[in-house]
Amino acid sequence: MNDEYFMSAARKQAQKGRDEGGVPIGCVLVKNGEIVGAGHNRRVQRDSAILHAEMDALETTGRQPGTFYKDVTLYTTLSPCAMCSGAILLYGIPSVVIGENVSFMGEEALLAERGVTIRVLDDPGCRTLMQDFVSQRPDLWHEDIGR
Amino acid sequence: MNDEYFMSAARKQAQKGRDEGGVPIGCVLVKNGEIVGAGHNRRVQRDSAILHAEMDALETTGRQPGTFYKDVTLYTTLSPCAMCSGAILLYGIPSVVIGENVSFMGEEALLAERGVTIRVLDDPGCRTLMQDFVSQRPDLWHEDIGR
Repeated sequence: MNDEYFMSAARKQAQKGRDEGGVPIGCVLVKNGEIVGAGHNRRVQRDSAILHAEMDALETTGRQPGTFYKDVTLYTTLSPCAMCSGAILLYGIPSVVIGENVSFMGEEALLAERGVTIRVLDDPGCRTLMQDFVSQRPDLWHEDIGR
Repeated sequence: MNDEYFMSAARKQAQKGRDEGGVPIGCVLVKNGEIVGAGHNRRVQRDSAILHAEMDALETTGRQPGTFYKDVTLYTTLSPCAMCSGAILLYGIPSVVIGENVSFMGEEALLAERGVTIRVLDDPGCRTLMQDFVSQRPDLWHEDIGR
């Protein structure tokens, strides 16, 4: 199990979101080499203002003690926004792997400043998913990032 | 309609949360002098890792265009954690009124640094709600803030 395996799982979540007519961003949480939570943006599907992919993955992982998160790696197809970065900081998730940050640059600097290890894979599949979406649905994309 | 009116509404949300057996934190969103969204922490009630009071208020307000948030004031009974502060930054909410920050100090410095106007009312009712809760349910409180 390596980065490509877990990012592929996050990308599949993003594709699922796209196929459902939603925002194509996906996320998985990995602990001890296993996927313990997965989610995708459900703004459209759940009529939600807060279910970004990372939030959805945290939610599907369920209620956990604080210690649970302290060795989790979060894989997300897109650089995490302020809300999702804040959730990463709240739970003390120490490591974040990002598919791409060309379509959108989130709060990577803040995360790094707070000691979160960040790696950016610059994954062409993640980039294509977002670029197609942003060009086809700029209205929905702007809504999703509060613009 | 003034601060006390809106904070009282947030406090009623917190009391509702307490009466449901949950974490007693409440929030209302105010726009043009009217409450447009209200919520309370639903970790226990919805088995949720993300429904802090502020997130619940954003969620009950529904999907909105980015412009909607740009003149909203968020009233919360407790200083907002990293996740909720991140959501405030994502949506560009310009003004936050906080019941108290003695029981918990959230990301007020970060919010202020990013230009969010912060006011702390130091409300005894909000403080009592939290102090009673933290002394009775330290386990649940620590879970809620990822400790």
